[in-house]
Amino acid sequence: MEMGLLSRIATNDGHGENSSYFDGWKAYDSDPYHPVDNPNGVIQMGLAENQLCHDLMVEWIKEHPTASICTKEGASQFKDVAIFQDYHGLPSFTKAVAQYMEKVRGGRVKVKPERIVMSGGATGAQEIIAFCLADPGDAFLIPTPFYPAFARDFCWRTGVKLIPVHCKSSNNFRITREALEAEYKKAEKSNTRVKGLLITNPSNPLGTMMDKNTLEELLQWTNEKKIHLVCDEIFAGTVFGQGAEFTSVAQVLEEDTSKTKYDPNLLHIACSLSKDLGMPGFRVGIVYSYNDNVVKCGRRMSSFGLVSTQTQHLLAPMLADNNFTSKLMIENSKRLHDRHEKFTSGLADVGIKCLSSNAGLFCWMDLRRLLESISVEGENKLWRIIIDEVKLNVSPGSSFHCTEPGWFRVCFANMDSETMEEALGRIRRFVFRLGEEEEKKKKEKEKEKKKKKFERMLSLPKRFDEMVFTPRGILSPRSPLVKAT
Amino acid sequence: MEMGLLSRIATNDGHGENSSYFDGWKAYDSDPYHPVDNPNGVIQMGLAENQLCHDLMVEWIKEHPTASICTKEGASQFKDVAIFQDYHGLPSFTKAVAQYMEKVRGGRVKVKPERIVMSGGATGAQEIIAFCLADPGDAFLIPTPFYPAFARDFCWRTGVKLIPVHCKSSNNFRITREALEAEYKKAEKSNTRVKGLLITNPSNPLGTMMDKNTLEELLQWTNEKKIHLVCDEIFAGTVFGQGAEFTSVAQVLEEDTSKTKYDPNLLHIACSLSKDLGMPGFRVGIVYSYNDNVVKCGRRMSSFGLVSTQTQHLLAPMLADNNFTSKLMIENSKRLHDRHEKFTSGLADVGIKCLSSNAGLFCWMDLRRLLESISVEGENKLWRIIIDEVKLNVSPGSSFHCTEPGWFRVCFANMDSETMEEALGRIRRFVFRLGEEEEKKKKEKEKEKKKKKFERMLSLPKRFDEMVFTPRGILSPRSPLVKAT
Repeated sequence: MEMGLLSRIATNDGHGENSSYFDGWKAYDSDPYHPVDNPNGVIQMGLAENQLCHDLMVEWIKEHPTASICTKEGASQFKDVAIFQDYHGLPSFTKAVAQYMEKVRGGRVKVKPERIVMSGGATGAQEIIAFCLADPGDAFLIPTPFYPAFARDFCWRTGVKLIPVHCKSSNNFRITREALEAEYKKAEKSNTRVKGLLITNPSNPLGTMMDKNTLEELLQWTNEKKIHLVCDEIFAGTVFGQGAEFTSVAQVLEEDTSKTKYDPNLLHIACSLSKDLGMPGFRVGIVYSYNDNVVKCGRRMSSFGLVSTQTQHLLAPMLADNNFTSKLMIENSKRLHDRHEKFTSGLADVGIKCLSSNAGLFCWMDLRRLLESISVEGENKLWRIIIDEVKLNVSPGSSFHCTEPGWFRVCFANMDSETMEEALGRIRRFVFRLGEEEEKKKKEKEKEKKKKKFERMLSLPKRFDEMVFTPRGILSPRSPLVKAT
Repeated sequence: MEMGLLSRIATNDGHGENSSYFDGWKAYDSDPYHPVDNPNGVIQMGLAENQLCHDLMVEWIKEHPTASICTKEGASQFKDVAIFQDYHGLPSFTKAVAQYMEKVRGGRVKVKPERIVMSGGATGAQEIIAFCLADPGDAFLIPTPFYPAFARDFCWRTGVKLIPVHCKSSNNFRITREALEAEYKKAEKSNTRVKGLLITNPSNPLGTMMDKNTLEELLQWTNEKKIHLVCDEIFAGTVFGQGAEFTSVAQVLEEDTSKTKYDPNLLHIACSLSKDLGMPGFRVGIVYSYNDNVVKCGRRMSSFGLVSTQTQHLLAPMLADNNFTSKLMIENSKRLHDRHEKFTSGLADVGIKCLSSNAGLFCWMDLRRLLESISVEGENKLWRIIIDEVKLNVSPGSSFHCTEPGWFRVCFANMDSETMEEALGRIRRFVFRLGEEEEKKKKEKEKEKKKKKFERMLSLPKRFDEMVFTPRGILSPRSPLVKAT
C-alpha cells in the first residue's frame, strides 16, 4: 500500500480495536462456548448485554400485531413507514421515547420530544456530541475507569482527546474536585483546551451510581470553568439495587427553578435503548441536549445514523404503553437483581469480592490477591490465564484505563442461568486450583528451605544424633513432612 | 452564545442546508398538497423517491410471516435478532444484499458479501468513504451538475473539499478528459491535493447513464493520476429505458482479467436500497470497496451507522428470493418507464423539453426559454414563481452546481398518478398564463410603440385627414385596436 493513499484516520489506531478489551472478544469469537456443541469453549463475559427480559417484549409483540409493518394487520402502513426519512423522526416515536426516558428518570425530569436527536446507537450519540462541542485537539476530562470504546466513539474521527482523571479504590473510585482541578490545570499549562467533562452514570465498568451531591458538584464545577458536562446515561434503566434510585444530572439542572445556578447550554446527555431493553441490534441512540444549537446541529448530523423507521414504528407503541413499560421496568430490575445476587454470592463463596454496586450489567471484580505481581504485566498475565485456561472472556481493568492492577469487569446478564453457573463453576475450580498450586509451591519452598538447612547442618556436623533417617531421605524431626508421611 | 463554546463544524454552514434545494423542501413542508384537505398546497417534486412498487413488497411480506420478528410466526427470533450487534452484519443479510447487487448489475459483476460494509444510508456511505480516503483539506473532483447534499455527506465533518468540473448541455453534460485535466492542474498549482474523482452513475440530477467507454476512460485516467475513483451507484436499480442496461464501473474493473490495467485499491462504490426499492426510512447504505484496507476501516466506521437488525432480518429473505426480486425489478422498471413517459409527454405538450434519460426518479427539465434573464438571478426568479405561484417544489439547477441557468430537476416517482396529473395541469396552466402574459406584454409594447409613433405624428402634423376620431380617442386606421373595437 502506497503511503498517503488513504487518510490518516484510516491508517491510525484511533479506532481502539487493539485494546485487550476487544482481544478478549476475538478469543471468544474463535471458540465460543455452547453447552452441547462446544462445552469447553470460551464464555463471553465481556459483553454488557441484557438478555433477561426479551420474553416480555415477545409477549407484547404477539399481542400487538398492528405495531409492526410486517404483519397482515400492520402491513397497510408499510409504504408510509418505509419512505419516511425526516430526521426529526416519527412523531409517535420521539414522543414515546421521551415518555420512557422520563419514566426511567423517576418522573423527576421533563423530557421534551423536540429535543430528542436520533443517533446510530450510543456510539453515534457520543460522536455527534463530540463533533458539536469540540475541535480537533480539544480535550475532555474523564474519570477512570471508563468504557474503552470511547476512544472510537468520542475521539477517532473527531480528533478530540480524552484526559483521564484517575480515581482509586480507596474511596470506591469516586471522582474528587481536587483530582479534576489538578488535571485541568495540567492541561491548561500544556496549552490543551479543555472543552468539557465526560462522565458515565451509572458507571461502566463500576456499576455504581453518582449521588445527587456529586452531580451538583460536577455541574457546578463545569459551570465555573464554563466547560461542557456530557453525561452518558445509557445504563439508566439497569438499576437493580433494592431501594436504589437513579438520579439523572438532568434532574439537578431542572430542580434549579431559579435558572441562575447552571447554564443549560453546557449540559448534554447520551442515552440508548441497547442496555435497558437489550436491543443493541436496533441501534437506538439518543442525544439529549439542553443547548438549542447542539439540538439543531446534532439533528443535522443524525442523518448519518438515523433509526430505521421500521424500528421506530415498532418501538413507538411499545414504549408508549405505560402498563407494559411499568411491568417491564419492575421485572427487569428484579431479574437483574437476582442475577447479580447469585453471581456475586457465587464469587464470594470462593473469596472473590466485587465493588459494591446497584446498576449495570456487570461486576467490578477484585482479583488483586491473585496477581503474581502488582503491575499491568501481572494483570495481563492473570487475564491471559483466565481467557486461555479458565476460558472466560472478562475484561482487564487496564483496558478501562484503571491505574490499580487487579480489577476485572465481568458481565453477567448476557447469558442464561445455566451458562452463568458454568462460569461460576469454572471460576471456583480455577480458584481451588490456584489454592492447591499455591499450597504446593509453599510446600516446595519449605522443602527447599529444609533441604538447604540440612545441607548446612551436614557441612557443619553438630547434634547428628537428632537427625532421622527415613526411606525418603534424611529429614529433620521438626519438618512438617515427617508428619505427612 | 459565547464564541468558541461549540465546535467550528457546529457553527459553520458546511451542512449545506442553506441551499435552495432544501429551501424548496421547507416551502413544501409548510404547505403540503393534499387532494382533499389542501388541494392548493405545494406538490413535492424535489424528492427523489420511488413510491411505485410498495404493493409488491407488502404482498411478499404478507406471504412470508416468518421473515419478521414481529409476527406470531417469527417472534421466536426476536431475542437473537435484537441482541445481534456484529458490525459484519447478519450473514444472511450481507449474502442477500450481494446477490441483489449482482442482479441489478446484470450478473456481470461478482459481489462478495465479505466486502459489504453497512452504513446509515448512502449519506453514511459517502462519509465513510471520504473519511477513509482523504484528510481535511484534500479534494475530490466532481462533474456538475451533482447532488447538493454531497456537501453534507462527503465534506461537512470530514473537511474534504469538492472541486466542480463543469459539464455543459452542448454535449449532454458529458464529462471530458480535457475538463478533468484542466481542473486537476489548477488544483495542483494551488497546492490542493486531489485524492480522487467522485461520480454518480446513473446521474442525479440528469437521469443519464455513463457508457462503458466513459467508465473505462475515467478508471484509466484516475489510475494514471494514482487517485481514487468513487462511484455513487445508488440509482442503479432505477433504469427504465427500453433496452437500456446499467453498466457498473465494477464491471469494467472485473473485465480486466489480466488484473494489470487498473489498481483495484483505487475503486470504491456507494450503494443503497433507498432509491431502487423506495425504502429510505430503513437506512440501508453500502460501501463496496475493492481496497481491503478501506473495507477493514470502513467496517470499523460502520459502527456509527449500522442497519437495524430488525431491518436486516426482514430484507435478508426478501432479497434472497430470486423469483421475487426478478418480478420486482421488471415491474419497477416498467412502472418507472410508464410514469416517465406520461410525465415527459405531458411536458412536451406544452413545449417543455427534458434531457433525454433512461434512469433515475426525475427529469432534467429545460426551462431556459422561460427565463427573464439568462443568469442565476433569472433562474431563481423563475424558481420562486414555480414554488410560490405554481406551487410545485422543483429544484433549480444552480443548487446542483450547474453553470447553465434554466435547468430544473423534477421528481416524478414520489407521488400517485393523480398527483402527477395535477402537477402537469399546474404546469400547463402556468405555461399558458406565461404565454398570455407574453402576448399581452407584446401587445402592450406594440401599443406603446404605436402610441409613440402617433405622438410623433401629432407633433409633426402631416396627412391629418388620415386620422380617425373614435369615442376611445384618436387612433391610426392601421391600429389593430381599430379592428378590435
